[in-house]
Amino acid sequence: MNSEYLLTLNDLNNQSPEYIETLFALSNGHLGIRTSSVVKGKTTHGNPGTFINGFYDTHPIVYGEWAYGYAKNHQTIVKLPDIRSLIIEIDGEKSNETDWLVEQTDFQLNMKTGMLEERYEIETLQGKKFTLSLCSFLSYSHSEISIFQYTIEALNFSGEMMITKNIAFQESKANDEGTIDPRVASSKSKLGIKQLNNEWLEVRTEFSGQAILISQLMETTDGANEIGCQSVSKRVFVRENQAVILTNYVVLSKPLTTDNCHVIETEKNKLTEVRNSLKFDQLVEEQVQHFSEFWQASDIEITGDPILQKGIRFNVFHLYQNAGRDGLTNFAAKGLTGEGYEGHYFWDTEMYILPFFIYTQPKIAKQLLTYRVSILPKAQERAKELAQESGALFAWRTINGEEASAYYPAGTAQVHINADIAYAFQLYERVTGDHQFIAESGAEVIFETARFWLNYGSWIGAEFCINGVTGPDEYTALVNNNYYTNKMAQNNLSYAVTLAQRLNSVKEEEWSAWQEAAEGMKLPYDHEQQLIKQDDTFFEKAKWPFAETPKENYPLLLHYHPMIIYKHQVCKQADALLAEMLFPQDYSMEQIQRDYQFYEDVTTHDSSLSRSIFSILASRTKQLDKAYSYFMDTALMDLTDLQGNAKDGIHAANMGGSWLSIIYGFAGLTSAGQTIQIENHLPKEIEALAFKLTIHGTPVKVQMDQQELNVTLLESNELSIKQVTKNKVIIVIH
Amino acid sequence: MNSEYLLTLNDLNNQSPEYIETLFALSNGHLGIRTSSVVKGKTTHGNPGTFINGFYDTHPIVYGEWAYGYAKNHQTIVKLPDIRSLIIEIDGEKSNETDWLVEQTDFQLNMKTGMLEERYEIETLQGKKFTLSLCSFLSYSHSEISIFQYTIEALNFSGEMMITKNIAFQESKANDEGTIDPRVASSKSKLGIKQLNNEWLEVRTEFSGQAILISQLMETTDGANEIGCQSVSKRVFVRENQAVILTNYVVLSKPLTTDNCHVIETEKNKLTEVRNSLKFDQLVEEQVQHFSEFWQASDIEITGDPILQKGIRFNVFHLYQNAGRDGLTNFAAKGLTGEGYEGHYFWDTEMYILPFFIYTQPKIAKQLLTYRVSILPKAQERAKELAQESGALFAWRTINGEEASAYYPAGTAQVHINADIAYAFQLYERVTGDHQFIAESGAEVIFETARFWLNYGSWIGAEFCINGVTGPDEYTALVNNNYYTNKMAQNNLSYAVTLAQRLNSVKEEEWSAWQEAAEGMKLPYDHEQQLIKQDDTFFEKAKWPFAETPKENYPLLLHYHPMIIYKHQVCKQADALLAEMLFPQDYSMEQIQRDYQFYEDVTTHDSSLSRSIFSILASRTKQLDKAYSYFMDTALMDLTDLQGNAKDGIHAANMGGSWLSIIYGFAGLTSAGQTIQIENHLPKEIEALAFKLTIHGTPVKVQMDQQELNVTLLESNELSIKQVTKNKVIIVIH
Repeated sequence: MNSEYLLTLNDLNNQSPEYIETLFALSNGHLGIRTSSVVKGKTTHGNPGTFINGFYDTHPIVYGEWAYGYAKNHQTIVKLPDIRSLIIEIDGEKSNETDWLVEQTDFQLNMKTGMLEERYEIETLQGKKFTLSLCSFLSYSHSEISIFQYTIEALNFSGEMMITKNIAFQESKANDEGTIDPRVASSKSKLGIKQLNNEWLEVRTEFSGQAILISQLMETTDGANEIGCQSVSKRVFVRENQAVILTNYVVLSKPLTTDNCHVIETEKNKLTEVRNSLKFDQLVEEQVQHFSEFWQASDIEITGDPILQKGIRFNVFHLYQNAGRDGLTNFAAKGLTGEGYEGHYFWDTEMYILPFFIYTQPKIAKQLLTYRVSILPKAQERAKELAQESGALFAWRTINGEEASAYYPAGTAQVHINADIAYAFQLYERVTGDHQFIAESGAEVIFETARFWLNYGSWIGAEFCINGVTGPDEYTALVNNNYYTNKMAQNNLSYAVTLAQRLNSVKEEEWSAWQEAAEGMKLPYDHEQQLIKQDDTFFEKAKWPFAETPKENYPLLLHYHPMIIYKHQVCKQADALLAEMLFPQDYSMEQIQRDYQFYEDVTTHDSSLSRSIFSILASRTKQLDKAYSYFMDTALMDLTDLQGNAKDGIHAANMGGSWLSIIYGFAGLTSAGQTIQIENHLPKEIEALAFKLTIHGTPVKVQMDQQELNVTLLESNELSIKQVTKNKVIIVIH
Repeated sequence: MNSEYLLTLNDLNNQSPEYIETLFALSNGHLGIRTSSVVKGKTTHGNPGTFINGFYDTHPIVYGEWAYGYAKNHQTIVKLPDIRSLIIEIDGEKSNETDWLVEQTDFQLNMKTGMLEERYEIETLQGKKFTLSLCSFLSYSHSEISIFQYTIEALNFSGEMMITKNIAFQESKANDEGTIDPRVASSKSKLGIKQLNNEWLEVRTEFSGQAILISQLMETTDGANEIGCQSVSKRVFVRENQAVILTNYVVLSKPLTTDNCHVIETEKNKLTEVRNSLKFDQLVEEQVQHFSEFWQASDIEITGDPILQKGIRFNVFHLYQNAGRDGLTNFAAKGLTGEGYEGHYFWDTEMYILPFFIYTQPKIAKQLLTYRVSILPKAQERAKELAQESGALFAWRTINGEEASAYYPAGTAQVHINADIAYAFQLYERVTGDHQFIAESGAEVIFETARFWLNYGSWIGAEFCINGVTGPDEYTALVNNNYYTNKMAQNNLSYAVTLAQRLNSVKEEEWSAWQEAAEGMKLPYDHEQQLIKQDDTFFEKAKWPFAETPKENYPLLLHYHPMIIYKHQVCKQADALLAEMLFPQDYSMEQIQRDYQFYEDVTTHDSSLSRSIFSILASRTKQLDKAYSYFMDTALMDLTDLQGNAKDGIHAANMGGSWLSIIYGFAGLTSAGQTIQIENHLPKEIEALAFKLTIHGTPVKVQMDQQELNVTLLESNELSIKQVTKNKVIIVIH
């Protein structure tokens, strides 16, 4: 097996339990499990947790000073207890009530199959030695099912063992500890636990009106199955040097948004049937096949740097694992690997993560976009709350579609999320050719976001202005005409006009107003310096005193009051450059170079979303050393625990950013209208690069090295290839 | 007695108990008492309360999303229990455990003396009838003393009564009710109650480290005194138609910021001596004399409108009553009449309230300014928290000097408070000639605020800019170069230069930098429209859609998200006009007229601080109808319960604003350098106006009617008078 698909403890810079739990975490887009230790002693370690995409609770946001229209509730993904560990009892000693000698001798994640292998050597207080191995994975054919196969082998004894799988659900106590940080408090959701029968448990949130159903089954080689919910036990007799195998299936349902007993009964019956028909070998076979197809479509091959190769596969693997796939859930900022950012969905999905899916896994891309369609009614309500007569404003951060940002200048005011979502629909349509989805579902999102721009913006003189917004750069807030926002809104409006004309579903009076707004859109530009202005007044502020700022004062947001940051020319990430990255056809190379130089000087990269964009633009402007350097600063972010907080979950958007840096940067992929262009910008540190794309359903193979670029269509009616130069290819969509 | 000094229930539009409690509330700047009913039945009514200036507790501000440098703690004035009511027991019936027939037959506040007279006719369940009268006032010679003289007269019986004065202090229970509004929660301070001995109680806050001492004495005509703390009782024998008099003194100490028992012992002994030497007749005599002197200096006489006359006296009376006088406390937004705004001190003091004191009660003005001197160290710390190398930034809202604003865009960002405070010191010096105070105490405040401007502002090109601030108009936030702020900062810097040169206490290198900044200060101006710009981008926004805004949507802040308000041209109050009002010499009449017209169109007056400024400028621009109309809209605000919330406390700044409308507006008072100019702008609705000022210690009498203006110096060496026209006089300070 290719070791570049194997993640082991040797690949990690940091061996803390919490960090390991994140990095080896398994997910299938519905379930996510942190890989905490299988044998827990009396002394607890780590931060175990199981997450279900879209299963959250709410509690009111407390404001020191309230104002009208503020987001009302926090939404927090529910942290469910560990579902991996066993309690083993030998001679009256219980593994969880004592501290046996437990040594983890093997731990490897096979990214090729999505399966995790662990092995522990254990010695009891009385000196009995045995090994415990676990092979675990989450099913992609039945996403409610997690599979744990435990193998126990006694090394110096024969005798009885009691093996218990106990999922430690318990009614939470009220959180009465004072805390200044509501995000700490919020994670302590109170769960209502109800045993439906011997096989099923219902776990209900306190405020969000959701419940999940839980059951488990323990299978031994003797064929006798134990079924239970919180706890199942098996008494086994082990013989020296003979393996005993126990297979455990845990079922965790999708969130049910009802307490109607018939609905619950139906779901219970459906899942009982699934649970009772599971076969380990078949599940393994399906898993291997599933991941084989995934890598077939989405792999990136890097020659000459095995560590980077593994790191990129790690990123792509986690991107794939953690995406919601049911059209009702999305991609949390930390995936399903941790509770950071409360499990919220952000613009990260559309602008940093979706390109990977659109270009290599369009079915999942469609599901992620379908989630936005599902929350359109909430976005329409939100627009009304903000006094907009019509249209929709998507929540800056959310699970259920309602706004959950408690600091609106860096939350609700980032109305660019509307245009980001529209952009993703547009890219999806261009790359997949799935016009039907757009006509049936996407168009309404595009029209409603376009309506928002027309209401929220204003004609001031001959220009269409969007005032009082915050762009992606959160070191500047509540400004007029953020360049990125306006550029993206312009694109949103234009796309809406195109769709309105094509689908003939909007009155001309309305779409012609969108067209006028798009054409009249203010795009702030400093003619003297020939620079794009981040917003109307960005150049009227003092530069941040970088020379006098000690290193330990970064990130600035943790060391300076927002007022102080906002009044300076300083960027957390350079959103004007992001606009240039997204619409390369609209800018001359000289313009991009000038802007790059200017904004690079004032950008701190305090956002993990910053460097990938700099890397891409550096590739495109032939600053290949910089492109590689910015790329490498973050490509291995979680594998090297660059920010020291991977324990809280993966940095999903950064993983998407590393994909963008490679594909949009090194491979120079740009798209516009009916063409996708690829250009070889491979930095000298990488010998060769190969990857696949799926365009209009057609697999496209891209290979490049220091000499040339080759693009091959594996089969096609809809595409043709135009080799412009040795290192530039245009894919034309017919 | 002149009935225009008497406030009775007939003068009120609203007879709710809470409203009456506010309007008749007594204060002496240290103590404030809401005038709740003296006989409380089983069924409670009203919202009784006693307040001590500067006695507050703190608790952490909870932020939905925290950021560096945010204000840490709420500060909330402690609401102490009612100290007015009696418990009367007859035949085993207790007034507080039953519902006797209680009719209030008289209730009048004599503003001429600061004494309140009440009379109740009472009938017990057994049909015993008696009257209870109370004469109460708060001493100005011993500010810790409140005096209650109760007179009881039996109407149809003779017999025993047990009279108890019980101050219902009780250890508060934890506030375990969930609430979304922290201001509700915050008022429930937990108090620690400790009986020091039979005579003294110590009441201690939970977090702010403050304590007060309480004692009371009950005196009867038989000369036997009962002394106690929480409760004193007297058994009295009443004879039909013979009055029995009980005099009760309640002692409430200043807040002690220590738990050192020696300090507490000393304070206790001092107050015991005071308590034991009180004589009612002498206290009354002192009170009458004190108020006589007050009115002598501060009365405003209006001919032709008795209601207005009484209303203005009511305003002036409350202004006088509620001002802190000890140099350690200030003037809360609701005075000491309620807990609204948590008892915080704002810029209201300097810009709306202090002119009244500076011009008529300079000693109190000095004490209010001394409070700012006392919190300078906190302001210096705050500047450091905001990354300023030197200088001071005063808290936007505070009791103890620390910032307590939980929404910084309309709190901390209002850095103009620094210049407002400097302005008040400057006006105080100009009007009083008290150069010694400025040299000894004020100058350091002026220098430190000037240093803040130099640090916080930036030279951008040839202009000194102050970016990222909020002006007084809270419908526009976080802008660059708010005109008012810059104009005031310029004045602050110039005054600092003057003092630095005069006192020779700052290096030339430093004050010359202040001078340059003052001279280079950016004052945004639209040359095309010839209008002052409220800030750099105010004219680049869309006008608020006034035509489409229904009446019930005002005040806007309760019906629109801040983002929506901020992105429009709309003012809560017009701060550019406030700048023109304060520095009339710097603007042509035409300029003021143009600005007035423009800003009037976009101002909602949703702030109670708005109309008085419009009234003043209307007077000065000879729009006398408008001046009178804006004035009358708010002159009687609390007497008519215009905003419906007088129950929470008086609108102190608005009361100051009504004084300004009269003196700065109708009497056209302006000051600059060594001159004070008065000009007759009396509207036709007012026959004649007379008032006094104290300038450089000299009483000045101003009289005007529809024909002419007369200014008389009662005695003087320092002033001379120049009658410019029949209606314009300049007072020159030598």
